[in-house]
Amino acid sequence: MDLNPEDGTLAYELDRAHVFHSWSAQGALKPMVIAGGLGSTVWDFDGNRYLDFSSQLINVNIGHQHPAVTAAIRAQTEVLTTIAPAAANLARGRAAQRILERAGHGFSKVFFTNGGADANENAFRMARLYTGRDKILSTYRSYHGNTGAAVVATGDWRRMPNEYARGHAHFFGPYAYRSEFWSSSPEEESVRALHHLERVIVSEGASGIAAIVLETIPGTAGILVPPPGYLAGVRALCDRYGIILIFDEVMCGFGRAGGWFAFQALGDVEGETVVPDLITFAKGVNSGYVPVGGVIIPPYIAEAFEDTVFPGGLTYSGHPLAMASIVGALDAMADEGIVANAERIGRDVLGPGLRALAEKHDVIGEVRGIGVFWALDLVADPATREPLPQATIGALKAKLLSLGLLPIFADNRLHVVPPCVVTDAEVAQALAIYDEAFASISVLA
Amino acid sequence: MDLNPEDGTLAYELDRAHVFHSWSAQGALKPMVIAGGLGSTVWDFDGNRYLDFSSQLINVNIGHQHPAVTAAIRAQTEVLTTIAPAAANLARGRAAQRILERAGHGFSKVFFTNGGADANENAFRMARLYTGRDKILSTYRSYHGNTGAAVVATGDWRRMPNEYARGHAHFFGPYAYRSEFWSSSPEEESVRALHHLERVIVSEGASGIAAIVLETIPGTAGILVPPPGYLAGVRALCDRYGIILIFDEVMCGFGRAGGWFAFQALGDVEGETVVPDLITFAKGVNSGYVPVGGVIIPPYIAEAFEDTVFPGGLTYSGHPLAMASIVGALDAMADEGIVANAERIGRDVLGPGLRALAEKHDVIGEVRGIGVFWALDLVADPATREPLPQATIGALKAKLLSLGLLPIFADNRLHVVPPCVVTDAEVAQALAIYDEAFASISVLA
Ligand SMILES: Cc1ncc(COP(=O)(O)O)c(C=O)c1O
Ligand SMILES: Cc1ncc(COP(=O)(O)O)c(C=O)c1O
Repeated sequence: MDLNPEDGTLAYELDRAHVFHSWSAQGALKPMVIAGGLGSTVWDFDGNRYLDFSSQLINVNIGHQHPAVTAAIRAQTEVLTTIAPAAANLARGRAAQRILERAGHGFSKVFFTNGGADANENAFRMARLYTGRDKILSTYRSYHGNTGAAVVATGDWRRMPNEYARGHAHFFGPYAYRSEFWSSSPEEESVRALHHLERVIVSEGASGIAAIVLETIPGTAGILVPPPGYLAGVRALCDRYGIILIFDEVMCGFGRAGGWFAFQALGDVEGETVVPDLITFAKGVNSGYVPVGGVIIPPYIAEAFEDTVFPGGLTYSGHPLAMASIVGALDAMADEGIVANAERIGRDVLGPGLRALAEKHDVIGEVRGIGVFWALDLVADPATREPLPQATIGALKAKLLSLGLLPIFADNRLHVVPPCVVTDAEVAQALAIYDEAFASISVLA
Repeated sequence: MDLNPEDGTLAYELDRAHVFHSWSAQGALKPMVIAGGLGSTVWDFDGNRYLDFSSQLINVNIGHQHPAVTAAIRAQTEVLTTIAPAAANLARGRAAQRILERAGHGFSKVFFTNGGADANENAFRMARLYTGRDKILSTYRSYHGNTGAAVVATGDWRRMPNEYARGHAHFFGPYAYRSEFWSSSPEEESVRALHHLERVIVSEGASGIAAIVLETIPGTAGILVPPPGYLAGVRALCDRYGIILIFDEVMCGFGRAGGWFAFQALGDVEGETVVPDLITFAKGVNSGYVPVGGVIIPPYIAEAFEDTVFPGGLTYSGHPLAMASIVGALDAMADEGIVANAERIGRDVLGPGLRALAEKHDVIGEVRGIGVFWALDLVADPATREPLPQATIGALKAKLLSLGLLPIFADNRLHVVPPCVVTDAEVAQALAIYDEAFASISVLA
């Protein structure tokens, strides 16, 4: 790699002059400039290298610049770069086939979108038209995307300035460490969260509820691995009341949780797999190498649109470059045992390592996670669990960057989310960096 | 190109087995299989070649497989294929710069999305937050995308099963050939349409209206080139009532209308250019080679988000591959005079050719268009202007395909929308095919 620091300056200046950024006040932004990456590492134009323990927006599951995926994209550009959704193209059929193989035999078709938000929009559409019902239920601790319905299904602060969709209601999901249900154990949290959900269903009017959408493992909200029995309980409530269960696997799918899908990974742990009616995906399916997302559909819902028009669509549904990148990514992940690596790293290396850190550093209130999908819930006081103040988070972030690690924070949490290809050595290096950074702020505090 | 008919069979079978399609009943679909393309031509695996006078979904403005654009994508895959929006990358700054150069000095920043729908969603968001107002006005003859707010801003049938967004009202735009205002000339249509729009503004409550969104030239609704004075009149109403004017240039932008933007092309014809507050784009900006869209923002709206968080965003905002393809496409379009070609073809070749066809064939009720953006309004009876029945449209479509032309229809209209690179010879060939096809149905009728 030939790096020219002037390119870094140019990239920064063009960005500040011309680019409007997501979820930000534009004035104070000082974007980092990234020049390139490989595997779990990225670098800037000055040659500074960072361990990418953010996987960008938790999407680069296969790591940066995986040669099989970039080659698949290049090969597709030589054949057919773009084509309308109405036409069939070979890459699209192959991508759908790969995805369905991994989802398991409950599913038969894939509808492709451009990202996670419109995947959820279309899943809501299917659920509403399939059931003839109106309401979508989702949790307060969730993020489902930035478009009309997806952002109102979202529970976090991003919903409030954007409430222009109707037909949404929210409930609290389980979060044993900061329970909304005065519970004292994960098992009790599960039982009480299910009781609360049923109370909301009944109070909103069960016969008007089209779908419940859940991140299988809520991601941005804190990597809230559901307590034992919770998902099975939600499934039972959906069955009892004729409600479609949508698992939003945009962030937790395709290796992130140590399985092809998080619901499968959790099933392996719990001994019973809870299967949703619809699955939405994006990010990990091709590690974001080309924008794409979609909905995985079971036969009974697909059949409802055999003779009835499905009233949704988009110009780039099943875009050939995106499709080729999915085939390339999923094949490489299988061939190279990348999902198995994520599972092993989580179980044997990263999980134990983070728990050891928590023993040493009082600011780590809780360690939660599975696979390469972990959060450290940071607290000012382990007894009250009061969140660590933002100023300290800022210092921690700066320290981690200065030590060569690209972190990702949400509220008072450090999310530890490296690519699924992360090695034991890289985890060891990251753990040492986290250790040093936590030591530095405990001096501050 | 090495074509294997078995690949065509495989592509078809995988598609029917696994792919869920946009805007369709799934049962009866018989998708055409496209193997490849170049310029204005596509072909299938049996070696059948078609003149692509649809530009797919009116997006392949630069033609199929333009070598400069595919090379730009390949080059970017060697450097940095994906990166989070928060980081700056060189390709993104360059793409924004290229787009702003073409939009003119009224605009300062670009917010990138994945396609046209979320471009509109984010433009609505900006308008609402900038004005502190609630309602979005749009026309009944419009399409703005399939997500929550975009599909409710849409006027056509696709809105009805999807009315889950609030804060939308609709009005009738001008359409002299099928006037909603009992007008007898384009000039009168313009005056009456503006009167109607002001009546709707006042009746909805001007002080509650955030934005009016218009396709500068409504596309799917019939390539309804606005009559003289209409856009200037809408601009004046927006100024009078403090309403943000959004031009949706997703379909009509980037060469399609014979200018970089349709509002510029229309300005060249009318002698006065009407500039909107926000522009949304997708399709032609990179000819759909990688999914992308965006919003072009003036300084006064960008500044409203200097210290205030903009509450919108998406994982793939400013995706490097999409950005590289924009730079490649816009540079090639400039270098090769592709927009000028679209303008000249429309003025000197395609427009006159279609008008000559209309002289010969009574089914062509009206010829409308500019650049490479034309519609033939097909009628069963030129006097009553009764739309040509769908059965005859079906026969026409089959005939065009059998003669080697890929057409695109909407309702009773044949849209004539070749790539901007279309040559005089290809237009001549297409006109001969249209002529023969119209002759065949007049025998039928
Ligand atoms: C769980 C979940 N759903 C949906 C989305 C939205 O995806 P996108 O940004 O591609 O629209 C995200 C993005 O972070 C997500 O984490
Ligand atoms: C005028 C207009 N706006 C918006 C859209 C939606 O764009 P996309 O399909 O990329 O979401 C379209 C698509 O045809 C369009 O023609």
